[in-house]
Amino acid sequence: MKHFINTDEVEDLVALANEGLVLKKQGVGKKPGEGKVLTCLYLNPSLRTRLSTEIAARKLGMECINLAADSAWKLETRSGIVMDGDAAEHLKEQAEVLGRYSDIIAIRAFPLLKDAQEDYHDDFITRFAKYCDIPLVSLESGSLHPLQGLADLMTIQETKKVARPKIVLTWAPHPRQLPQSVANSFSRTIQQAGFDLTIACPEGMELSEEYTGQATLVHDQEEAFEGADYIYAKNWSSFHDYGRTIQRPDWTVTQEKMSRTNQGRFMHCLPVRRNVVVSDDVLDSEASLVGQQAENRIYAAQAVLKNLLSQ
Amino acid sequence: MKHFINTDEVEDLVALANEGLVLKKQGVGKKPGEGKVLTCLYLNPSLRTRLSTEIAARKLGMECINLAADSAWKLETRSGIVMDGDAAEHLKEQAEVLGRYSDIIAIRAFPLLKDAQEDYHDDFITRFAKYCDIPLVSLESGSLHPLQGLADLMTIQETKKVARPKIVLTWAPHPRQLPQSVANSFSRTIQQAGFDLTIACPEGMELSEEYTGQATLVHDQEEAFEGADYIYAKNWSSFHDYGRTIQRPDWTVTQEKMSRTNQGRFMHCLPVRRNVVVSDDVLDSEASLVGQQAENRIYAAQAVLKNLLSQ
Amino acid sequence: MKHFINTDEVEDLVALANEGLVLKKQGVGKKPGEGKVLTCLYLNPSLRTRLSTEIAARKLGMECINLAADSAWKLETRSGIVMDGDAAEHLKEQAEVLGRYSDIIAIRAFPLLKDAQEDYHDDFITRFAKYCDIPLVSLESGSLHPLQGLADLMTIQETKKVARPKIVLTWAPHPRQLPQSVANSFSRTIQQAGFDLTIACPEGMELSEEYTGQATLVHDQEEAFEGADYIYAKNWSSFHDYGRTIQRPDWTVTQEKMSRTNQGRFMHCLPVRRNVVVSDDVLDSEASLVGQQAENRIYAAQAVLKNLLSQ
Repeated sequence: MKHFINTDEVEDLVALANEGLVLKKQGVGKKPGEGKVLTCLYLNPSLRTRLSTEIAARKLGMECINLAADSAWKLETRSGIVMDGDAAEHLKEQAEVLGRYSDIIAIRAFPLLKDAQEDYHDDFITRFAKYCDIPLVSLESGSLHPLQGLADLMTIQETKKVARPKIVLTWAPHPRQLPQSVANSFSRTIQQAGFDLTIACPEGMELSEEYTGQATLVHDQEEAFEGADYIYAKNWSSFHDYGRTIQRPDWTVTQEKMSRTNQGRFMHCLPVRRNVVVSDDVLDSEASLVGQQAENRIYAAQAVLKNLLSQ
Repeated sequence: MKHFINTDEVEDLVALANEGLVLKKQGVGKKPGEGKVLTCLYLNPSLRTRLSTEIAARKLGMECINLAADSAWKLETRSGIVMDGDAAEHLKEQAEVLGRYSDIIAIRAFPLLKDAQEDYHDDFITRFAKYCDIPLVSLESGSLHPLQGLADLMTIQETKKVARPKIVLTWAPHPRQLPQSVANSFSRTIQQAGFDLTIACPEGMELSEEYTGQATLVHDQEEAFEGADYIYAKNWSSFHDYGRTIQRPDWTVTQEKMSRTNQGRFMHCLPVRRNVVVSDDVLDSEASLVGQQAENRIYAAQAVLKNLLSQ
Repeated sequence: MKHFINTDEVEDLVALANEGLVLKKQGVGKKPGEGKVLTCLYLNPSLRTRLSTEIAARKLGMECINLAADSAWKLETRSGIVMDGDAAEHLKEQAEVLGRYSDIIAIRAFPLLKDAQEDYHDDFITRFAKYCDIPLVSLESGSLHPLQGLADLMTIQETKKVARPKIVLTWAPHPRQLPQSVANSFSRTIQQAGFDLTIACPEGMELSEEYTGQATLVHDQEEAFEGADYIYAKNWSSFHDYGRTIQRPDWTVTQEKMSRTNQGRFMHCLPVRRNVVVSDDVLDSEASLVGQQAENRIYAAQAVLKNLLSQ
């Protein structure tokens, strides 16, 4: 692969996930990243992503430099503009310079949730890639969170008891307006790996057709939970009425709903709002995989970085 | 030792201090921290602590990651709450994830100085430890600053001219409300190492009995200074009228007061307010050990980290 | 050399530039910085400087610690003051402690542009050096930006087609009040290396005589561009009417003006305001060297650090 902005460009995603699991067990061996630089550009806040990426890079022997966007000065992204306002630097120069300074660049740039076209096909990472000639890694783009998707796939690979588990992605309540990125990447990644997926959400909250793919769509959450091996909970704002949020407290994942599953495991990407997205008893139970998912972020990032370094 | 939250759990504190001094002289040798991660969580500002801890860790071969609290999002610490407000993540998840990402976690969490019980026995570090199964290091807790205490002990070990020097901890003025942590740790550490201690403070500013221990309590500062080999100055707010501050400019450490000592050395943990805590002439004199104390923070941290890594 | 605060103290600047170019080609070889600490103190924002310096240090094997000024607490710089206000620490203690923690300290401290004497001869770095006994590196001082000057010299060494190219430093428009530092360092460095320099600026915007040196001064920009091999554009505020700014949109560097040169290359230190300092077509043309200049910052810093480490 050239970049890692979405998982579509990964020829064999399962092999990449397995590579992550091997790295987890055997460590990095001789350090392929010695003398190489990863620069991480955070346009949005991050905890797990920042830590897991930095730890992954450093254990590979790479230097890792974290930059908060606008930490130095405001960036101009429009073309042909007379820069006599607030912005002191243009994206073009910043991308070129970071490209010259780094061997790989990783970028987190959340969607604005106002214009689906811009968020999905012309977001910050896409524009950055135009002026920068080295591998880019998405740390969450306008439409996807592929490292999360890869870590989630690794977690299912590690824990599944049957070859074809029933995997359910369920919409859950949240007080804020959130992107569809994590849900899109989970849906895409799981299906790309050859699993079946059921997506449960209130009417109007369906994901884009592009990322729904062949998933079975259900609007009755309890029906979806029947016999499930994995319940992946996540809130997202509407794609079809782009950015709209709804309040549906009846969609919180509870122990009672979990009892309909086949001793299903609970998954969430974190951070999670307790007793809004999911009840304390589910999150604190043995069924919860959230810590393991978070830990796998390190090895997902290592697998990706190692792969990019070996190009 | 399992954690390093207070020095009580250190079986032989002097041996640990001596180990720090050996590290200072001989360096770390082969790196025991290779491939290990120290995550430092700063809920409060830090200069010496951040730098000395990071340098200590890196020279041991560890990766060191610094996190400012709330740099990603607000943290919920209460149990059983419906998280529909500002806080996006619960302490439980953050502690579990940082535990999975790290080999050692270090935390700075100042007391709020409103409730002694909470600050002394149920502070942030105590609650964090409940959900995290790896060694923790206090970078200053609600009641203690044990790395400072260890560095101070190392400084006395390095400079003492007699086996049992007269050591005086004196309260000093300060415009702000400060914790008792540094004073508590100095008192505890010095006595734990077998030295006698005299504590001088205005009436009402006595430390807790728990941390006063066997120290000789004096309310007349000049009497305390007579024949002293070490004067350790520090402001703290009241323990017994919890958090109350007083203004006593007559308690500033001056050259004239120092002349009563036995060519006593001056100590302070820094940062220090010149001509409030201590006069320029004392701080700029040969008697001052403040730079050496600060330098010893590196080797105190190294001794502690090395010890925790070898468990 | 002892410090690197200005290039005057460098005995053979060209040799140092060449050393940078050798580092660029051959890498650092065995790491001379192993176990050494570079602490970078940023009193002002930085992107290229922070990244290039950190990358340079780490590739040399050094640890690099970045500190934002006032990130811990406000610093007092005046002498003899009673510190009962906002500032919690004095420059004296901070300089001594950072000196004990580090092997080299690098400082960025922009001028205030109110008092030329203070900015040019008694700035933060000068005062810091009084209390700190290890090598200092300027990451831009009150009057100079010597690492930029060195990188610019390296860029000319790499690209020049004749032994004595015509080099022009031209004032250019900018909406903000900027220091003279980059211009001063370019003028000084180029002349120190034995090149001739032409400086073009509106009347009243001449650099100090100290840094103008033997340069040919021209007030007609187009005349200056005639036959030039290099056009270095930069805005600066007035030295002689200290800190005054002027608006002269007719001084923007355009393609039409560049056509008067001898296929001249365009240089700028970045960040650059497009269509204010220079037009898009010049910046996006093959003539532009701005990316190469930025890249050379890494190797300029490496050459300087390596030299300081070998003292």
